[in-house]
Amino acid sequence: MTAQRIDAEITGSVHIIGSGLLGASIGLALRLKNIPVTLADTSPTALALAVDYGAGVAVTQADSHPQLVIAATPPEHTAEVVAAALKKYPGAVVTDVASVKLAPLQRLQELGADLSRYVGSHPMAGRERGSAIMARADLFVARPWVVCAEERTDPAALQLVRNLALAVSAVPTEWRAADHDSAVAAVSHLPQVVASLTAAQLVKTAQQNLALAGSGLRDTVRIASSDPELWVQILTANSAPVVSLLEGLQHDLGEIIAALKNGNAAGARGKLAATLAAGGAGAARIPGKHGGSNRFALLSVIIADKPGQLAKLFTDLEELKVNMEDIRLEHSPGAQIGFAEISVLPELRDDAVAGLEARGWRIV
Amino acid sequence: MTAQRIDAEITGSVHIIGSGLLGASIGLALRLKNIPVTLADTSPTALALAVDYGAGVAVTQADSHPQLVIAATPPEHTAEVVAAALKKYPGAVVTDVASVKLAPLQRLQELGADLSRYVGSHPMAGRERGSAIMARADLFVARPWVVCAEERTDPAALQLVRNLALAVSAVPTEWRAADHDSAVAAVSHLPQVVASLTAAQLVKTAQQNLALAGSGLRDTVRIASSDPELWVQILTANSAPVVSLLEGLQHDLGEIIAALKNGNAAGARGKLAATLAAGGAGAARIPGKHGGSNRFALLSVIIADKPGQLAKLFTDLEELKVNMEDIRLEHSPGAQIGFAEISVLPELRDDAVAGLEARGWRIV
Repeated sequence: MTAQRIDAEITGSVHIIGSGLLGASIGLALRLKNIPVTLADTSPTALALAVDYGAGVAVTQADSHPQLVIAATPPEHTAEVVAAALKKYPGAVVTDVASVKLAPLQRLQELGADLSRYVGSHPMAGRERGSAIMARADLFVARPWVVCAEERTDPAALQLVRNLALAVSAVPTEWRAADHDSAVAAVSHLPQVVASLTAAQLVKTAQQNLALAGSGLRDTVRIASSDPELWVQILTANSAPVVSLLEGLQHDLGEIIAALKNGNAAGARGKLAATLAAGGAGAARIPGKHGGSNRFALLSVIIADKPGQLAKLFTDLEELKVNMEDIRLEHSPGAQIGFAEISVLPELRDDAVAGLEARGWRIV
Repeated sequence: MTAQRIDAEITGSVHIIGSGLLGASIGLALRLKNIPVTLADTSPTALALAVDYGAGVAVTQADSHPQLVIAATPPEHTAEVVAAALKKYPGAVVTDVASVKLAPLQRLQELGADLSRYVGSHPMAGRERGSAIMARADLFVARPWVVCAEERTDPAALQLVRNLALAVSAVPTEWRAADHDSAVAAVSHLPQVVASLTAAQLVKTAQQNLALAGSGLRDTVRIASSDPELWVQILTANSAPVVSLLEGLQHDLGEIIAALKNGNAAGARGKLAATLAAGGAGAARIPGKHGGSNRFALLSVIIADKPGQLAKLFTDLEELKVNMEDIRLEHSPGAQIGFAEISVLPELRDDAVAGLEARGWRIV
């Protein structure tokens, strides 16, 4: 349907519709690569904020010939925004970053959109709260970026969207829309519902009881502070695979309740133990922070509570050429010592420990 | 019933029965205060490990006149171990650190134990995995340490256990056993069951689907890797309040499933939105990492990816007399820049930003 040949390399400008967390973060990351970015948003305030952040320039009539258009709107608007962009920019490839992929695709088919120039995509990155204030250029670094090719997709359009992912340092990964939706039902939508339901049980808990909460509770319900409006759209757009998972959970929950109500019945403790062990097995299958479990080795360095210790540690690490991949400080007021928990490539760990110990550091 | 007057100050030795995570961590923390600690464990390996760690010395016949005995065993052994210790050490105060408080107390009453010298307690601290290898002296710092006084408790015995909590830098807080058990059902046992049930749904998920997982899923199920055996004991010992919470969850889950199955029915989206919003409200009621939400202010410093930057940042922070309460590094391979997210006391934030900017740092 498209007259022009599509260029798979990013040589022109990128137009981002929707300047929330994802739109503004993509803009910031592209601007770091000196790729021209124009922004649009139905909210002048959100647009001005993203422009101030350096995520791009507000679009004007004069510069509206983008090579690539990104619909970064709430998912219920995705299909209509994509369809309008395909019409308005007949030379452009159009993508979106919605968390569901099948529903917008089906709607675009109903609308008769030019699907050769549309490539659905979904960067697997985000934060609990989604305004441009939380935007960051490194949001997508080393994260998967799902790209969905369908029968009618122009191969050059697919490659252009893959290049978009690479430009923001993400890792493009090709999926069919339906397979993507099944996957995110398990890794994203299930935990969202569970976190929300769990936190909802705490609305009437006495405040003094909540004062006993630790990181276990906080981590379990962290994503419960996500935007309800956005999540109603996501969950209803992906209800079939989500319901299937929730019904599995409902079944297991019923069994746990029955076992706890009859704790001395034959098999009750065995049932509890089996479910808890299955949880451990399921958790162990999730790849680690950097895309593979145990990719990094940890070393915990004891830090005395006196001035200059951290600066000395980092100076020593740099002189020893130990490249830190991550760090966590564990230190609380009143403690005599703290710990710096440092992640390094496994092959560097032994040398790092030997080098640090030779400089007087205690490693635990 | 006790002949000797109980000394509320820690002047003698502390004997810890059970040298797992909690026992070894208490030993380490007490040894930092030069309090003599003896250790016992049914596993010679676990005992040797804790002794090697510096958590105390293995108990011998010669030195077994402790002032205070701590039962740090799995909860199903707590009552029997406490009862035996009360008999074996007739001059000692005995406490325990089990995650449930009513069941051991009732069992001690059945056993006819000397409850004047027993004070149940529960330090609200832990990690997913519980061996001495994970022990750390700062495990209890600034964490609540529940102490349970009952009618027959000698006030000096209660004060001695409060002083134990203070000696390891915890914050003693007085509860009735039943109230404690209701509280931990909400803040600890509910999230444990939820995390396990959620992770259990992932046992059959295709590995390629799990490759799309991010921190949302990982955080939601982090505690699912806890020890199943230990948790069967905890949950069965606290089944009534846990079942009550799980039935609330079960009800809400049923409503969510019904709403998702009939997404276009009147009220379905409203029901979803209300549950998700209730989750946000519940999560917002949980005090923050350091015992109060928003106690610290955050500043994110942009770090260029070149040698010496972190050492320079920490040197600058120390010269500016900015005391960091916590730090997170966000940097991934391939990114041009990273961020150091630093927590400081709110009153220090403006000066810290001004000082850092004057030294050329970019704060976002």
